[in-house]
Amino acid sequence: MNDAVLHCESEPSDAEFMRLALQLAEQGRGYVEPNPMVGCVIVRGGKVIGQGFHERFGEAHAEVNALRSCGDPSGATVYVTLEPCCHFGKTPPCTHALIEAGVRRVVVAMGDPFDQVNGGGLTDLQQAGIETVSGVMDAEARELNIAYLKRIQTGRPWCVAKWAMTVDGRIATTIGQSQWITGDESRCDVHQLRGRSDAILVGMGTVLADDPLLTARPAGPRTATRVVFCSRRVPDASSKLIQSARDIPLLLIASESLGDESLNPLEQLGATVFRCGTADPVEGVREAVAHLGSLGMTNVIVEGGGELLGSFVQSGQIDEYHVYMGAKVFGGRTAPGPIGGPGFEQLTDAVALRLIRTAQIGEDVKLVYRGGC
Amino acid sequence: MNDAVLHCESEPSDAEFMRLALQLAEQGRGYVEPNPMVGCVIVRGGKVIGQGFHERFGEAHAEVNALRSCGDPSGATVYVTLEPCCHFGKTPPCTHALIEAGVRRVVVAMGDPFDQVNGGGLTDLQQAGIETVSGVMDAEARELNIAYLKRIQTGRPWCVAKWAMTVDGRIATTIGQSQWITGDESRCDVHQLRGRSDAILVGMGTVLADDPLLTARPAGPRTATRVVFCSRRVPDASSKLIQSARDIPLLLIASESLGDESLNPLEQLGATVFRCGTADPVEGVREAVAHLGSLGMTNVIVEGGGELLGSFVQSGQIDEYHVYMGAKVFGGRTAPGPIGGPGFEQLTDAVALRLIRTAQIGEDVKLVYRGGC
Repeated sequence: MNDAVLHCESEPSDAEFMRLALQLAEQGRGYVEPNPMVGCVIVRGGKVIGQGFHERFGEAHAEVNALRSCGDPSGATVYVTLEPCCHFGKTPPCTHALIEAGVRRVVVAMGDPFDQVNGGGLTDLQQAGIETVSGVMDAEARELNIAYLKRIQTGRPWCVAKWAMTVDGRIATTIGQSQWITGDESRCDVHQLRGRSDAILVGMGTVLADDPLLTARPAGPRTATRVVFCSRRVPDASSKLIQSARDIPLLLIASESLGDESLNPLEQLGATVFRCGTADPVEGVREAVAHLGSLGMTNVIVEGGGELLGSFVQSGQIDEYHVYMGAKVFGGRTAPGPIGGPGFEQLTDAVALRLIRTAQIGEDVKLVYRGGC
Repeated sequence: MNDAVLHCESEPSDAEFMRLALQLAEQGRGYVEPNPMVGCVIVRGGKVIGQGFHERFGEAHAEVNALRSCGDPSGATVYVTLEPCCHFGKTPPCTHALIEAGVRRVVVAMGDPFDQVNGGGLTDLQQAGIETVSGVMDAEARELNIAYLKRIQTGRPWCVAKWAMTVDGRIATTIGQSQWITGDESRCDVHQLRGRSDAILVGMGTVLADDPLLTARPAGPRTATRVVFCSRRVPDASSKLIQSARDIPLLLIASESLGDESLNPLEQLGATVFRCGTADPVEGVREAVAHLGSLGMTNVIVEGGGELLGSFVQSGQIDEYHVYMGAKVFGGRTAPGPIGGPGFEQLTDAVALRLIRTAQIGEDVKLVYRGGC
């Protein structure tokens, strides 16, 4: 892996070293969750003498990797994108390592709201006589770990709604043809997202229509659990999802109205079942999302179909929308749109979003929005 | 009006002078149609000594304006974005003016396919001993006058489909609320397009739902004819369209199935009626578009609703799509999409488009596509 390089004409500032640390942190995406991504840069005399990032869940933290990468860190300034930990988790506290290394100053982008840290890391450093600065590139650091922060603060994962549609907002023709609306490059982009996510969520309509496998191809840094919302029907024992359930995690979110007689055989074939305490689809989504959070999931993708996305939107559980618009027109009064369910009757009740970015991907356009929670 | 300025570090080339001429030409947009936009730059010794453009229909052509703007054009090179005319129209032939001015060389971006020119302009210049060059920035010149070229070559105007929709592809909520999906800046952008167009086309569903006036606010360089497609119903005598028909042109495209008893009273109130020879909506669209071309119209906008856009798409009469996407989600199985009609069942029959550009307008995204004709 190449080291990130700092480009800077005048004397680098705290913000510029922190930007480098943020770039390092980003390299852990998909590998470190449910931990946050963290990067660290060690500087003495205006020169970077060490750098590191949290590379993989369960392994060394960014600070330790950065300390290991430099000869003598004594008297140096340490830039770290998140407050150093002060507790024994899978590794010893980073505060100990920094104090023992004899660093002079620690600059952090933001505090860690995680219960066992939450200001304690900075306090420990201060008590050891180390100068601390907090809030440098705070907004960028929050953006980097927006999913982690949501999970820590609410117990729920960051939920991305993803769909492909035509220029006229259709996800299939009037007779249900939908492969493919977008091009190879867009589908590759989706598979990359799948490969960094903890779960891929679909409704039974999608399972019946497409018999999908719901894997990332090629595989990414983590294997997403396939999650199917079952209200009246369950996947067939011969479906690709059930057939692969012993090899790739499969979780069925079962409505209260489904009985053990349909669920038990699928559990025996390798599926895990979460039994909702409700038959209401909107309430069921709320319960299911909390359950996914309790499993330690940080990033999940809701891929549809329209009815499941409708329930997610109605329940206010979507944090981000990834819309891939293919350069086609289907037309047709009855051709389905991406979000079903009852919808919002009053325009004033409609979900208001914020545009985050647009990108051209081949002939397609990708639009990313946030809001609505 | 400010003169366009040439920014250039080394010796300007033919292409750079032509780019300046194209920028000048663009200033005639909305004023010169059904003529083409044309710009002209006169250069001697590497210096611009004259410039002009066709400013308004019926008035002087670009070459004449440019010749008038300089002292002595003898021996100069003339850059003009379209082959000079060689016929007596509303003004005398530009070839005469150029020959009389004693210019040495004429560089054109493209020939004019208009029947009465079509190579004759360049031939006249050559026979007078003037050196001619053709094809400099040809693609840019064709793009500038794409609507003019379509009308000259097919007799039909350039048809723009325009709609506003949510991120989930809806043009109204399940109970029909639609004002507003997009923000002020997007609506202003639409009004600018209206103010440069020859006609604004809507279906009776839109008239009944919105009672629109269909004017550009503020007014632009030209007043678009309001065109309503009437299949079974006609606008009410009390509608804003009929009430304003004596002041602002209103054209009703009447299906064969409509009788004189419903149309004659509206004609008496100021509306013009074009009687189609068919009751089929798709055939009716083809007839109507040809009729608009025969009226000399160059640019028309199809604003909806969904059924009229569906007929336009089915008939292959849309050249360009302007999609304004508002940062909202409506959801709802029955919330309407932008293009109704029967649609295309087979994905292989779907209209394939080319993305031309995207732009962020406030919180909205504007997407422009072409193709499908």
